Amino acid sequence: MLNCAVLGATGYTGAELTRLLLSHPDVRITHLTTRQEKPIPLSEVLPSVPRGVQLQITPYDFEDLRKKADMVFLCLPHTEAMTTGDLFLQAGKVVIDLSADFRLKDATLYPKWYGIDHAFPARLRQAVYGLCEVNRKKIRKAELISNPGCYPTGPSLALIPLLEKKLIKHDPVIINAASGVSGAGKKLVTSTQFCEVDGNYNAYKVNKHQHIPEIEQNLSLAAGREVAITFIPHLLPVYRGILATIYVEPAKKTVTEDEVRRALVTAYGKDPFVRVKPAGQFPSLKDVRNTNFCDIGVSLDARTGRLVIITAIDNLLKGASGQAVQNMNIRFGFPEGAGLI
Amino acid sequence: MLNCAVLGATGYTGAELTRLLLSHPDVRITHLTTRQEKPIPLSEVLPSVPRGVQLQITPYDFEDLRKKADMVFLCLPHTEAMTTGDLFLQAGKVVIDLSADFRLKDATLYPKWYGIDHAFPARLRQAVYGLCEVNRKKIRKAELISNPGCYPTGPSLALIPLLEKKLIKHDPVIINAASGVSGAGKKLVTSTQFCEVDGNYNAYKVNKHQHIPEIEQNLSLAAGREVAITFIPHLLPVYRGILATIYVEPAKKTVTEDEVRRALVTAYGKDPFVRVKPAGQFPSLKDVRNTNFCDIGVSLDARTGRLVIITAIDNLLKGASGQAVQNMNIRFGFPEGAGLI
Amino acid sequence: MLNCAVLGATGYTGAELTRLLLSHPDVRITHLTTRQEKPIPLSEVLPSVPRGVQLQITPYDFEDLRKKADMVFLCLPHTEAMTTGDLFLQAGKVVIDLSADFRLKDATLYPKWYGIDHAFPARLRQAVYGLCEVNRKKIRKAELISNPGCYPTGPSLALIPLLEKKLIKHDPVIINAASGVSGAGKKLVTSTQFCEVDGNYNAYKVNKHQHIPEIEQNLSLAAGREVAITFIPHLLPVYRGILATIYVEPAKKTVTEDEVRRALVTAYGKDPFVRVKPAGQFPSLKDVRNTNFCDIGVSLDARTGRLVIITAIDNLLKGASGQAVQNMNIRFGFPEGAGLI
Amino acid sequence: MLNCAVLGATGYTGAELTRLLLSHPDVRITHLTTRQEKPIPLSEVLPSVPRGVQLQITPYDFEDLRKKADMVFLCLPHTEAMTTGDLFLQAGKVVIDLSADFRLKDATLYPKWYGIDHAFPARLRQAVYGLCEVNRKKIRKAELISNPGCYPTGPSLALIPLLEKKLIKHDPVIINAASGVSGAGKKLVTSTQFCEVDGNYNAYKVNKHQHIPEIEQNLSLAAGREVAITFIPHLLPVYRGILATIYVEPAKKTVTEDEVRRALVTAYGKDPFVRVKPAGQFPSLKDVRNTNFCDIGVSLDARTGRLVIITAIDNLLKGASGQAVQNMNIRFGFPEGAGLI
Repeated sequence: MLNCAVLGATGYTGAELTRLLLSHPDVRITHLTTRQEKPIPLSEVLPSVPRGVQLQITPYDFEDLRKKADMVFLCLPHTEAMTTGDLFLQAGKVVIDLSADFRLKDATLYPKWYGIDHAFPARLRQAVYGLCEVNRKKIRKAELISNPGCYPTGPSLALIPLLEKKLIKHDPVIINAASGVSGAGKKLVTSTQFCEVDGNYNAYKVNKHQHIPEIEQNLSLAAGREVAITFIPHLLPVYRGILATIYVEPAKKTVTEDEVRRALVTAYGKDPFVRVKPAGQFPSLKDVRNTNFCDIGVSLDARTGRLVIITAIDNLLKGASGQAVQNMNIRFGFPEGAGLI
Repeated sequence: MLNCAVLGATGYTGAELTRLLLSHPDVRITHLTTRQEKPIPLSEVLPSVPRGVQLQITPYDFEDLRKKADMVFLCLPHTEAMTTGDLFLQAGKVVIDLSADFRLKDATLYPKWYGIDHAFPARLRQAVYGLCEVNRKKIRKAELISNPGCYPTGPSLALIPLLEKKLIKHDPVIINAASGVSGAGKKLVTSTQFCEVDGNYNAYKVNKHQHIPEIEQNLSLAAGREVAITFIPHLLPVYRGILATIYVEPAKKTVTEDEVRRALVTAYGKDPFVRVKPAGQFPSLKDVRNTNFCDIGVSLDARTGRLVIITAIDNLLKGASGQAVQNMNIRFGFPEGAGLI
Repeated sequence: MLNCAVLGATGYTGAELTRLLLSHPDVRITHLTTRQEKPIPLSEVLPSVPRGVQLQITPYDFEDLRKKADMVFLCLPHTEAMTTGDLFLQAGKVVIDLSADFRLKDATLYPKWYGIDHAFPARLRQAVYGLCEVNRKKIRKAELISNPGCYPTGPSLALIPLLEKKLIKHDPVIINAASGVSGAGKKLVTSTQFCEVDGNYNAYKVNKHQHIPEIEQNLSLAAGREVAITFIPHLLPVYRGILATIYVEPAKKTVTEDEVRRALVTAYGKDPFVRVKPAGQFPSLKDVRNTNFCDIGVSLDARTGRLVIITAIDNLLKGASGQAVQNMNIRFGFPEGAGLI
Repeated sequence: MLNCAVLGATGYTGAELTRLLLSHPDVRITHLTTRQEKPIPLSEVLPSVPRGVQLQITPYDFEDLRKKADMVFLCLPHTEAMTTGDLFLQAGKVVIDLSADFRLKDATLYPKWYGIDHAFPARLRQAVYGLCEVNRKKIRKAELISNPGCYPTGPSLALIPLLEKKLIKHDPVIINAASGVSGAGKKLVTSTQFCEVDGNYNAYKVNKHQHIPEIEQNLSLAAGREVAITFIPHLLPVYRGILATIYVEPAKKTVTEDEVRRALVTAYGKDPFVRVKPAGQFPSLKDVRNTNFCDIGVSLDARTGRLVIITAIDNLLKGASGQAVQNMNIRFGFPEGAGLI
């Protein structure tokens, strides 16, 4: 049994991660922590917890964690994960970080997109970007796994094989994405009040979202050259799920829709959590919610020659906690779908 | 008082139109009709009808309509409006048609996009496309006004002035649109069942939506050359509203965001129902629902040089019945906002 | 033209009230106030405001209000309305208070249910309870109108005539009510976050809601004896609307369902905003949302002899701002439906 | 491994049941059937099915079922289950029926509440009512288990121990219940269209719901005398979940809230799926959705002496498929929570 700790278990991703770990056959939860000063029964943030489970979410205690946990999941706010992650790495623990603190390789991007200087730039080089299906080999040996952002996961999975095989142009890449409200976390802000969201839909952080450099890093690596994307996120009146509608162009006029689809099937045909839709079918949030799937659909418009690729994930699972468990499974040699199927 | 009839008053647009006409100071409703065989009290389809109003929705009776109505609104299914519209035009009535039957100038597009041959191609030339702010002069003298489709309204209002002033390229024009469920009408289909829609979001009719040629016709006219667009509609889990996120490119590198915004303000600054958002602000469905407004926001991304334009309308008002009343107001010399503000 | 001021125009009821007053033919808005220090454009809290309207919501200025306003609407938090109301009454203004501060006749109930001592108990005697259809005569001459609470409005309208005519027993009276989220106001609390409310439904303030004494006061007056009710409010995942399902018993075995319905029709048959449903039909939120209607349905169960009465209103209209305008109309001799139909 | 068949796997309960059985460690699915003529891939009705699973939903074939299945779950429409159930019982199979066809002991109730004569009244005596926590012993030996209705489950679990211990009066029993839309099944009707349900809430089948005799049968048995209830169901704009707010009276004035709560804890303290809330806390749909829990809360109002009991379940799990699996677990000696936790 692997001894796991979840740091920051009271938020949406922390609670979802705890739910998954509870049903994982190879895992023992040693700690669930909170920044609050008093212990909280797990059942308060995770009402579905089985009756026998008496876990508490307790104040953070580094020494106790160091003694009992083999690995830690960080579900901490951006910038806080930086320091905590470094500490546990120094203590020889495997760290899977669900924040953005170790996702970007170029430390100079942090001041621009996150408004902070990175405290441990050397860790950025060490970190393995945990996009499971793409980086599986590196993940197996990683000490620090940086779990991908919710928005980057779907578009990166869809576009990386197409850029690598030079089936699409590296420019333009236009990503129109829409997310459920749980992506915004639990902090109290007007924009996530029921009366603001219900019946509403709008773009936000237009051309300014912090996931832009992360997606660009992924696509640039695949394209072998710098890729600059247009990315517009929208807020949906739903609890969970992200659907991205992506507009790109085939590399040549001879590229067919079927060729694109087959490239994706080749890339992911054996992976348990990526499904490529047959011709004429497209992803829906309802098909992926409460699952760790990433669904991908493809349409090449004969009229305009433009390629539309649509991806869907559950932002709390494949876009956060599900992928984190998948990373743990890969890292520790468990079946990739353990605790997830 | 203008004597108006609404043909097809039991659907969402028919009921919304009736609601508007009831509060219009210059209008008397002479008929509300249905294809059903028995009369239906208006209050059954429009529960908000004031207590004194005793209107019935009655079976269609051409002779009686001909005698008492000065003008007719057609809220009929596509293809049915074609014949009925012709009949009332022959009888010397003004016709405002909310279907697509008179929207396209090129009759050969009907077989391709609507699966039918057009029965009265000559009427297509006669018809004035009722995009109020753009065609106001022609609408004043029109006998047959073809009310714009719900999806085309916002993007056309936003892009026409920019194409006319050559501020944007005519290609690419990518429109990512999302609509509330009322846009699908009242027919019973699985895809509009609550359990299918709630918590869901997906693209549909990918690269195949029948509003594509209508938008292209509008933009081609403005550009002075043929425009081919990419248009992907999505279904939102909301009752009403359409938000379109549009990706285009400035005509030259020297074009500024402010220049684009000012062009829109110049075009619509005095219009009661088009609002151009200030820099950094963008439309939301909640700002336009239950109104006849079309809101437009603009962002030019310095990193990619790409222009994002966002429009929002209420699909049942500015996207259907509201614009129909606005067209009537223009046609008959009433204040443009009568019954709408 | 009547010069009206709205104190506290940034909340849901304040904004809704402003919307109604803007379309009222006999009213001029002199002030919209806020406790914030800087002016706010009205369009920020009321996006549907017509383009020409340039109103600002400005910091409260008693002297200016005193000079220009004939009457004031108080959309202030409980306890704050007490003092402000007294001040404007001293200045000779008509006050319509939408808070609970003047609703209860018995000052000793305030410490128990609202946690405060009442600062001006004499004003409680002066205040006319603004349940329009019941107290119309008194409202015509009132200086201080206390607008009813959202939950009390429907059940009071339904039960008062039945108690007065002794058609039902005064005990038991069980009211199971469910409200949309706008009833909770705009303050940031976890329980009104989208992710808490969406897909959820639950009872709250079980046996503790502050509207209990208000309903009991109304029913006791009608019954001519003290009535103690059971009242359980629930939170619905909807924006607006309250539906109350009420369980009572006929006074005698000989009372028929039809007799009960006719008593309600007799009481409200000529009122513009109360609709009694025919046998076998019952109210729905969708029938009353965005209207000032109160719908009432009746079912007498032959098996158990128990009477079920269902009422529905829009909590922001008949349950708050709509009824406030109706009160103003009655007080100042305007048509009762002015600005509301 | 137990060989199980699901008859009627395309509906909401059938799909949910299949999902549970797929993850059950002791079960092999032999058949998923449909009344349609062509096979349907399971993934079409259950998008979350793991990638390796290649199950098809196939046309009903009695002979093949008889050979391969040890037991059958009937997710068939009312009246159809009657005949099919009898057939499999004759063939010596264990039958768990999720319809109402074997729930009522008194055959004369079927014409009144279901509009049909019962074809196999003898089977009614044979059937064990599968309210797991109450009938566990009988379920262990049952050949025909009649799975409880969605509405009856929560109120029956809450009231049976209180009636048995004579803590509450058998009259009045008033149940105000609210259900998510999945309870209405997949058939296409106007009342479950998104635009009808979204933002709406209303009572339906007032005093006429077919679950009334089922609840009365359960409560009468517990009370040792005939119980007549008032039951009003409402439709919530949510996908899944039922919350029932129950109004009863303590048997004596000396009964305390704590006594009532302790009676429930005594009855269910060791059961994995019934949770009694501590004083001052009440069930929410969000606490039980996607779980097999039944949560129960209690409040005794000191002012009126009335007792309010609130229950919540997920209608598709504890209210249908979850309880069906729990019944299977009890019947075949598997751990009661297998496949459910």
